[in-house]
Amino acid sequence: MAIILGIDPGSRKTGFGIIEFNQGKSRYVTSGVIRLVDRAIPARLKVLSESLEELIQCYSPSELSIEQVFLARSADAALKLGHARGAAIVACVTRGMSVNEYSARQIKQSVVGSGGADKSQVQHMVSRLLSLPGVPAEDAADALAAALCHAHTQSSMIHIAGATSVARKRLR
Amino acid sequence: MAIILGIDPGSRKTGFGIIEFNQGKSRYVTSGVIRLVDRAIPARLKVLSESLEELIQCYSPSELSIEQVFLARSADAALKLGHARGAAIVACVTRGMSVNEYSARQIKQSVVGSGGADKSQVQHMVSRLLSLPGVPAEDAADALAAALCHAHTQSSMIHIAGATSVARKRLR
Repeated sequence: MAIILGIDPGSRKTGFGIIEFNQGKSRYVTSGVIRLVDRAIPARLKVLSESLEELIQCYSPSELSIEQVFLARSADAALKLGHARGAAIVACVTRGMSVNEYSARQIKQSVVGSGGADKSQVQHMVSRLLSLPGVPAEDAADALAAALCHAHTQSSMIHIAGATSVARKRLR
Repeated sequence: MAIILGIDPGSRKTGFGIIEFNQGKSRYVTSGVIRLVDRAIPARLKVLSESLEELIQCYSPSELSIEQVFLARSADAALKLGHARGAAIVACVTRGMSVNEYSARQIKQSVVGSGGADKSQVQHMVSRLLSLPGVPAEDAADALAAALCHAHTQSSMIHIAGATSVARKRLR
């Protein structure tokens, strides 16, 4: 069993979602949005880091799944996003978690079946895949989608490894 | 007395410099460069965060001085720099340090007397101001310059406060 933390970092709010992945099945644990309302960057990063630390202590995830960034809108936006990503990655990596990055396309493909899916489709499918009673907020849904993408990728890798070992046995 | 940590963050190497500031005088404590040689960003940020944690534990600085970033070269460079800055700021702010940002111009003005000074002038003046036996490496010199800028700014503020209290006494 793996406990996976998905994060959708931002300089004003950071979505998070935790799922349990066991024998090919994903179960919802928790999700939400950490709001970084303070104006000063250091204070925002402190809130982000301490909130993630609390989540990690409480749920003991072993794996982080986070969206890769390819094209930031501007240098200023990239710097702000970099601060939040750096703080989030450090909170996880210094507590022994593995860090796994997926492109937005990979995440959408994995959850919705189309790399070009929009936010509402992601919200809808995350809710269905995890049998939630409602639709999570956008940032929380994106974070849960990242966690699900990692779970699906791990699952495929286990399947491939399994198929290879079966093939090996057949060859003997 | 204040122990000030200056940092010059970068995605490949981060300069650091620690000074002790007491009654208007700055004394060199230590400086160096943390090299982030690993290719993967999470591993780099882990090294950066843990190295800063060690420094903070060892020298107990109470104040961080760090260069503000106004214009990054590109979105990609800004994102990388943001990761390192975020990790560095979090390492300090979660340990109760105050975070103080100064523009490159302010730092150069404070140390060299000219906001347009080049790197070698900064190295030379840092070495003179702290009576070092040699010239520190560029990144370490920039970090020490940031620490000195914060010390000088604090010192000016104390002088202004002092002058005001003298002026108040005269007015009585």
